[in-house]
Amino acid sequence: MADVDPQNLGERAERMLLALGAISAEPRRLNRQFLTPEHRRAADLVGTWMKAAGLDVSEDALGTVRGHWASAGLMAGRNTGKRLLIGSHIDTVIDAGLYDGNLGVVAGILAAEHFAKAGRRLPFALDVLAFGDEEGVRFPATLNSSRAVAGVFRPAALELKDANGVTLREAVTRFGKDPADIAGAAFSPEEVAGYIELHIEQGPVLENRNQPLGVVTAIAGQSYLSVELMGEAGHAGTVPMMMRRDALAGAAEIILQAELMARDTSGAVVATVGVVTISAPATNVIAGHVVLIVDIRSGSDPARLDFVERLKLEIRSVADRRHLGLQVTQTRNVATTPCDAAIQDGIAAAIRATGSEPLRLASGAGHDGTAMAQLGPIGMMFVRCRGGVSHNPAEYASPADMGLAVAALIRFIEGFKA
Amino acid sequence: MADVDPQNLGERAERMLLALGAISAEPRRLNRQFLTPEHRRAADLVGTWMKAAGLDVSEDALGTVRGHWASAGLMAGRNTGKRLLIGSHIDTVIDAGLYDGNLGVVAGILAAEHFAKAGRRLPFALDVLAFGDEEGVRFPATLNSSRAVAGVFRPAALELKDANGVTLREAVTRFGKDPADIAGAAFSPEEVAGYIELHIEQGPVLENRNQPLGVVTAIAGQSYLSVELMGEAGHAGTVPMMMRRDALAGAAEIILQAELMARDTSGAVVATVGVVTISAPATNVIAGHVVLIVDIRSGSDPARLDFVERLKLEIRSVADRRHLGLQVTQTRNVATTPCDAAIQDGIAAAIRATGSEPLRLASGAGHDGTAMAQLGPIGMMFVRCRGGVSHNPAEYASPADMGLAVAALIRFIEGFKA
Repeated sequence: MADVDPQNLGERAERMLLALGAISAEPRRLNRQFLTPEHRRAADLVGTWMKAAGLDVSEDALGTVRGHWASAGLMAGRNTGKRLLIGSHIDTVIDAGLYDGNLGVVAGILAAEHFAKAGRRLPFALDVLAFGDEEGVRFPATLNSSRAVAGVFRPAALELKDANGVTLREAVTRFGKDPADIAGAAFSPEEVAGYIELHIEQGPVLENRNQPLGVVTAIAGQSYLSVELMGEAGHAGTVPMMMRRDALAGAAEIILQAELMARDTSGAVVATVGVVTISAPATNVIAGHVVLIVDIRSGSDPARLDFVERLKLEIRSVADRRHLGLQVTQTRNVATTPCDAAIQDGIAAAIRATGSEPLRLASGAGHDGTAMAQLGPIGMMFVRCRGGVSHNPAEYASPADMGLAVAALIRFIEGFKA
Repeated sequence: MADVDPQNLGERAERMLLALGAISAEPRRLNRQFLTPEHRRAADLVGTWMKAAGLDVSEDALGTVRGHWASAGLMAGRNTGKRLLIGSHIDTVIDAGLYDGNLGVVAGILAAEHFAKAGRRLPFALDVLAFGDEEGVRFPATLNSSRAVAGVFRPAALELKDANGVTLREAVTRFGKDPADIAGAAFSPEEVAGYIELHIEQGPVLENRNQPLGVVTAIAGQSYLSVELMGEAGHAGTVPMMMRRDALAGAAEIILQAELMARDTSGAVVATVGVVTISAPATNVIAGHVVLIVDIRSGSDPARLDFVERLKLEIRSVADRRHLGLQVTQTRNVATTPCDAAIQDGIAAAIRATGSEPLRLASGAGHDGTAMAQLGPIGMMFVRCRGGVSHNPAEYASPADMGLAVAALIRFIEGFKA
């Protein structure tokens, strides 16, 4: 690693992220959605960087920019005919930070440049991918870019509409592409040796353990339970406590029960209630109708599914005890995406080579890797972010940590067995 | 009571309530606010009824209609020079039922008619009052009508504005009155022997105990605690349970603690959380900032104030344990209005005379009596309402119960010692 300068790489990554962060639909906050003019400008900037890095640049029908570094010539006898894909996304949430997604793209370019600038051919090709639809802000769907690359794009998604009634099909056309070409974006599973994504942790574990980098073991599976409680609205002053059927008090019990049960799993499951909707809320009215949503995630599908079933029983028990009507609907059920064991070990070794201890942890957030896992083995490296803050302008990863991350990514590529 | 026909009185009350209920600002739901054209039409209808009942009709500067039945002539030697006031209100909430307020006015007219039609003079005068500002829907204040009659109208209220920016002063003028005459609406405390109001219970206690009528012991005092909890927003998938500062989970504990503590008072205190506001709620975001309001009521001020102090300690303990920032603000602190003991006994005797058992209960809701208590002794009679439902088109009191209530009111007047 004598030829790698982490400090310089980290500073370059930060400058590139600042340049990308200036590309927004709004002057005062970062907002860059799928197939918008901002997406176009960011993709162009990424393409320029890829070209300057010595990569061959192309773009598929959903706007995913690809920077290709070919493998050693077939004649050289050490060409596996495989590709290693390195990617992340350049779309953002509304009022986003600079790092989520964008860091993975920038790191991929810097790592590929390391080989391309030196004219160093590997036994496999490198493809750096800048996806544009990971946050799912514009259309009621997500991961369409990576699904297309993975060959699992659902054509029905073309009819989905954004808030202005524009379909994905229309948006693709306005972006200057042909929806008929989406199928052509897919790589063949036979040629893909793996997919690796570098991403900020979006959580506080690395910071808490004082480690800059981590190895992701799995992208957590996720269940949503939508819980509707039907009590009886009443005057806050006139209905005795014992005659009440207070839907909000029932919701409060469920919130605490979900929290308690998740705490009892010792980290295997997290459960969160972030939304409680009271129908016609008023200070002096007992809540008659409340809907809450429980977000349940785990790196283990059996642990998550067992949790969902146990929580459903507790919810039923709360509703029965309080004489509340109940409707529980599972609105999401996404399986865990495990990270490939060999890629995990490769990332761990690369992190050790940069001088830090590779902490293994599951990713509670979803990523493009969820789609890419349908194409081949995947892996992810996490970078420490300050306070675990993400989806927020306060999002921050230090140049030092980002430099270490790019160095580790270069080391991983060097050690990768296609 | 041989000359009183409860069934007929109940049926007449229902017809009058239906006629009043047709007077609304909206075609499909009842909405009759203070000093509006609807208030004008309802006041005119009430005035017509009072006149037909044999009463002298006048109207004060806030639109309160007064039907007066003079006492026995001073020469007759049994004139006390006092008045018994009988009132309630004809304004409504939005999407109201027919009974709240309106029943008390209709019952007062029917009771006074009983004496007036027979030419039966009493040792005291009767004044039936139809107030117009009990619900407080139009202006950010309430009870202005009864405050004016009680001589405690606050002139500063004239500058309050409705949702269209119209001040109370302007509304009075547009109603054809002169704000300078409001002071003249006041009765003199010396001449007022008492105020009685008949009202639907707005709660389920009478129905639950199978009794048509109740004696109100006090109008409950009320405290509002506004509780602001400051935690830390975070990704629902990435922050371990033990590292969370979830403001909504803290709110859930407080909701349940308030409920538990109120249950433990055996009916002395009721506490309700009807509003919980999450800043930027999202299914996949741990709530970082939540505000909830606790509505606390009791017929006993010491019980209420003790409850408030104990609840504050519990709230502090929840916030400390969860490392949440906390701001507790007492946004309301209204003292209990006790009902006069002699008037309570008089109402109880009158209810017994109609053949039912007088249940004593506090009023958890506020009433014009709160203002009128500043003028003289007050009392209230409650009428059973179906399911305890109020402030709702489903509000209902049966003609049979209303007839008994008017009969009891007549009996009360007959037995009243001015």
